[in-house]
Amino acid sequence: MWTALLAAVLAPSIASADEGMWLPEQLPQRAVELRRLGLTLDADALGDPKGQPLGSIVTLGFCSASFVSPDGLIATNHHCVSGYLQYLSDAENDRNRDGFLAASRADEQWVGPGSEVQVVDKITDVTLEVVKGVRRRTRDRTRERIVSLNQKTLVADCERDRPDVRCQVASYWGGAEYRLIEKRRLRDVRLVYAPPESVGSYGGEIDNWMWPRHSGDFAFLRVYVAPDGSAAEHSADNVPYQPPRHLEINPEGANPGDFVMVAGYPGSTYRFRRARDLRFARDVRYPFRIELQRQIIDILQGHADADPEAKARLSSSIGQLENSLKYSQGMLDGFSKGPVLADKVAAEESLMDWVEADPRRARRYGPAFAELDQIADEDERLYRGEAVVGWLLQIDLLRAAYTAWRLAGEADKPDLLRDRGYQDRDRERHARRMERMDKSLWLPSDRDALVLLLNRVMELPEEQRPTPVVELVTAWGGVEAAVAKLHDQPALAQTEARLALLDQSRDALAESDDPWVQLARALDAWSAPLRARDKQRAGSMLRLRPAYIEALRKQSGDDLYPDANGTLRVTVGNVKGYEPADGLWATPQTTVRGLAAKAGDWPFDAPERLLEASQTSADSRWVDADLGDVPVNFLTTLDTTGGNSGSATLDSQGRLVGLIFDGNYEAMSADWLFNPVLTRSIHVDIRYILWTLESVEEADWVLDELGVAAP
Amino acid sequence: MWTALLAAVLAPSIASADEGMWLPEQLPQRAVELRRLGLTLDADALGDPKGQPLGSIVTLGFCSASFVSPDGLIATNHHCVSGYLQYLSDAENDRNRDGFLAASRADEQWVGPGSEVQVVDKITDVTLEVVKGVRRRTRDRTRERIVSLNQKTLVADCERDRPDVRCQVASYWGGAEYRLIEKRRLRDVRLVYAPPESVGSYGGEIDNWMWPRHSGDFAFLRVYVAPDGSAAEHSADNVPYQPPRHLEINPEGANPGDFVMVAGYPGSTYRFRRARDLRFARDVRYPFRIELQRQIIDILQGHADADPEAKARLSSSIGQLENSLKYSQGMLDGFSKGPVLADKVAAEESLMDWVEADPRRARRYGPAFAELDQIADEDERLYRGEAVVGWLLQIDLLRAAYTAWRLAGEADKPDLLRDRGYQDRDRERHARRMERMDKSLWLPSDRDALVLLLNRVMELPEEQRPTPVVELVTAWGGVEAAVAKLHDQPALAQTEARLALLDQSRDALAESDDPWVQLARALDAWSAPLRARDKQRAGSMLRLRPAYIEALRKQSGDDLYPDANGTLRVTVGNVKGYEPADGLWATPQTTVRGLAAKAGDWPFDAPERLLEASQTSADSRWVDADLGDVPVNFLTTLDTTGGNSGSATLDSQGRLVGLIFDGNYEAMSADWLFNPVLTRSIHVDIRYILWTLESVEEADWVLDELGVAAP
Repeated sequence: MWTALLAAVLAPSIASADEGMWLPEQLPQRAVELRRLGLTLDADALGDPKGQPLGSIVTLGFCSASFVSPDGLIATNHHCVSGYLQYLSDAENDRNRDGFLAASRADEQWVGPGSEVQVVDKITDVTLEVVKGVRRRTRDRTRERIVSLNQKTLVADCERDRPDVRCQVASYWGGAEYRLIEKRRLRDVRLVYAPPESVGSYGGEIDNWMWPRHSGDFAFLRVYVAPDGSAAEHSADNVPYQPPRHLEINPEGANPGDFVMVAGYPGSTYRFRRARDLRFARDVRYPFRIELQRQIIDILQGHADADPEAKARLSSSIGQLENSLKYSQGMLDGFSKGPVLADKVAAEESLMDWVEADPRRARRYGPAFAELDQIADEDERLYRGEAVVGWLLQIDLLRAAYTAWRLAGEADKPDLLRDRGYQDRDRERHARRMERMDKSLWLPSDRDALVLLLNRVMELPEEQRPTPVVELVTAWGGVEAAVAKLHDQPALAQTEARLALLDQSRDALAESDDPWVQLARALDAWSAPLRARDKQRAGSMLRLRPAYIEALRKQSGDDLYPDANGTLRVTVGNVKGYEPADGLWATPQTTVRGLAAKAGDWPFDAPERLLEASQTSADSRWVDADLGDVPVNFLTTLDTTGGNSGSATLDSQGRLVGLIFDGNYEAMSADWLFNPVLTRSIHVDIRYILWTLESVEEADWVLDELGVAAP
Repeated sequence: MWTALLAAVLAPSIASADEGMWLPEQLPQRAVELRRLGLTLDADALGDPKGQPLGSIVTLGFCSASFVSPDGLIATNHHCVSGYLQYLSDAENDRNRDGFLAASRADEQWVGPGSEVQVVDKITDVTLEVVKGVRRRTRDRTRERIVSLNQKTLVADCERDRPDVRCQVASYWGGAEYRLIEKRRLRDVRLVYAPPESVGSYGGEIDNWMWPRHSGDFAFLRVYVAPDGSAAEHSADNVPYQPPRHLEINPEGANPGDFVMVAGYPGSTYRFRRARDLRFARDVRYPFRIELQRQIIDILQGHADADPEAKARLSSSIGQLENSLKYSQGMLDGFSKGPVLADKVAAEESLMDWVEADPRRARRYGPAFAELDQIADEDERLYRGEAVVGWLLQIDLLRAAYTAWRLAGEADKPDLLRDRGYQDRDRERHARRMERMDKSLWLPSDRDALVLLLNRVMELPEEQRPTPVVELVTAWGGVEAAVAKLHDQPALAQTEARLALLDQSRDALAESDDPWVQLARALDAWSAPLRARDKQRAGSMLRLRPAYIEALRKQSGDDLYPDANGTLRVTVGNVKGYEPADGLWATPQTTVRGLAAKAGDWPFDAPERLLEASQTSADSRWVDADLGDVPVNFLTTLDTTGGNSGSATLDSQGRLVGLIFDGNYEAMSADWLFNPVLTRSIHVDIRYILWTLESVEEADWVLDELGVAAP
């Protein structure tokens, strides 16, 4: 089966119809291909981000979602709302465990500060504006400064006096193109329905990334706005938002062979990285990450097991960490399963041959390869130190102190010259995070994790070691003493103290004897020169990567799509199984019957009311005739990745037939190299969503709003 | 999917074409059905046990096999010859680990004393002879005595002055019918080829009973006879046997949908047991067995891990125990997976309704049900004690002593009145076993197992406890002291001492102070009255079970086959996958490519030479066009069970297309209740056998003999 893959990789153009996270604007030029694959919508219409269906697609910032009613009802994944459910939980109510169904609109629950739904208003090509002032001979550090300033200026101009608008300059093709994306921020988001965890993530970590799958990974939100229709903070006076577009539901769902597409916001892929980057990821980056992450999860899980309060606070983090651990592991397995690296090497050699076959190409692209190598050498040399420090900054109170210190440090500069993430526009977001920390903070596990990580810091090789941190810890009497000092009734455990920190000046923070602030200062003393190096590197990359990718694009005859970068993309394919192993075929649909057959102990503790309803699921109006039951999940050939979670799965007419929520285990290495034979996306079937609402939850008013009221 | 099963069970006739271990004589009357299923051979010919192909089918006593050349070459499973391989191993040569290929016929290795290939010469219905003298009012104990004496007389008459013939009276339909089976004993059996364990049981216990599967579970033996063609003991003067029939090979193999059949010697099934028997098996018998067996395996494995010599001696036993443990576990899982018990209850209720619907039927069959219940009550009451003692008798030296004591005890009686297994005709077999024990005996593990089992004996509830054993152990000072005494340089550890024991008189043994003999006497003091009770019970069953089964047969319109009883049967079906879980389809073939993809650490340590050959398997002449590779294993719907191992898998013309070696995990509960949806047999494809011989082993002379010499 790897033969097919090899062919796909060696051919300079996209060999598989399934591969591709296309920009909306690329769709019209692919109209013939899309029609051949089964699209019945007009490709021009499909390419319009404000039209139907793309105009219905929104982002929650970390997940995708879509409007599914004229009154602002939004469909997304259950796992995308688990942070909201945690916010809505307290000692009496565990919304993650029990789920939630609003009795009526009046009962819908605000999901808390900092949550927002973003709707794209406008996408503009701003490449010329971003590179304005850059010349061929501009030095790399200056190049980075100019490009960065231009971007920040564009964003500042875009957001000026428009508090409800968030703007972003997205970079494509490694910095060869830029687009300014304007998004409306709808900030009064409320929970309408979420199934219990035992439905929403049925099978838990055992089934995560796996097939067969029976997850009811869906939830409904609603966006509220001021009575005049404008975006507004949460208020009792707000009214449901009337989106200009919403998706129609196709209650026939998706069946084997059917054309389907997904529109959403995939986060990041590494398809244009070089073979040596893949080798380093395989041999160092992922193994190192996996080892440390496993230890941290074990610490958190130990606390969660011992104390229900810890469990409530940590379960969302544990879930995310487990998920990302399995992702890393799947990536490694994927790398070792087939000749992924060999294929990448072969593809790169084919590119080199193409470059060297023509003296003009050799002149234009040749030098970039050598320089990319030098930069990669340096990246690899410094990796471990940066990785450990990255984990250290996941400790809640250190993150709080570090954020305050960095904000104060940048505050002296004019806003546009500040580092990204530490401008005035970011303050509110930081403040909301300081508040939300109140729900997830658990000092005992943070303490254990801190011991682990500081010990790792102390053991780092000389050249990667954050010396100021090592000195501070040593001055405090070693790791145990340092952690004892940090955890001796820390002031920052109080939300007010954290919020107050954000308002302190650089001078005040520089003199603070709060140990967390001291540790943050020490960390920054080490990372400040690294940041300067990173900017230099970024400036180099702005020269090199576009050249590299330009060579790839030209070699392919311009039949490529850019790496995922968190912007709206469309991927097309069909419903199809795959061969997980010689002698097995993953059939592309599962059923309620199969769900019930798996029921048992946690994490397969399907709710009693669902199991009861399952006994008559075959008689439901949502039954599939071929399966003789209600379909639960299905597989497709679609090209998706993290960030696509919650994306609408659409049929050939752009109607909603499901929600994507996962990839198969074999799909993870697709972030580096797409394998059409093994890569599959996993979706929840709209018929399972409707069946659950109707037969398990009796949520008739939601079915009404979805336009599928009981006959 | 259980719907289909329910229907199959409730219908009084055989609902599935696949179910049935048919007697050869039943095949002609099923000719229309067989032709419909795809048989092209004449059903009359197929029903002739001396004709083609059944005339080529033989038994090794515990496994099935078949002649595949005019020179007495025999094909069977690798796992059927592992005892032989152990016999052929010593400190330098581990034949199980390394396999064996004779360089030429002269190099073929005798597999040791006690091994024999049995060829059926004649099958005669002897029902009238067996029940001769039994009258309606004959008391049960007498009935057993008469039937037993009649059987032994038939066997004695049959074997008189024919040392090369072994006769057996087999009971069918729970004792309603009997057949005398005469078999020629071909005792010079030699090993021609066995692959290494890493091919023959690739995947070891992990893959055992599982799909996907990639086992090269095949081996070749050859039978030698005296130069005049008569059966003879092993001798250098012997010559290859010329069987009257041998199977032709079909190198096209078997492909999805193809008609296939298996002819062999299935051991036992329990399809006519009652619902309460199934319930007891599920709730007590299998769980009790699993618990004890797990402990014993752990003991043996501990010794095997610690000492290579122990490993060589114990690995065959461990393999068998693990296999049977997984069987028991699969049985239990099968019982709990679907409504097996419920279906059995429903079928039994339907039978009761049928009986009660007619006063004559009610009079004829009604009382049997009540009496069967009483007997089952008693069986269940005594089960645990008998089970523990059964395990105790697996301890090598105790078995030796007990066998000698029992033989001596029976020796006073006329031969025909002796208990079965302790007649003159059995002496030779016992002697061979005493000899073979030399290869498997390992005192340290026997010692630990003995401690475990004697402790279990001491803990048995009063009414199940073997009091004489308890008293002896107590007199010796408790379990630890007793075991120390038994293991203080035991005389029976010497083969000569064990053989000498067989010749001792009852009186001599009664006075022996060998502690093993003392323990054997104590055991027998307890079991003698139980044997009497068993004979009484057997006499009752001779009345009751035929009545019960007669009712079932009449209700079904006589479309039934008898339970497996170790006699020749034929099962027909086709190559077909199944659904192991919702969302998965087990495709019915695996490939060399898939085998290589699984290769890694033990038990997936495929030999280097096989992995090398696998790189060009797609170019082999044994390639399957659809798969693009050499097929390794395949699934069929055939109805098989233990004892079928090594059976020839035949195509519609009776040609060899593979060897059955296993059932899927879901098939185990089929021994109680056949489920056509889930039950599958697993075969090794003839093309994998031929490819291995040709491309891995370069065993050209074997290919020549199989009639598929390289072109």
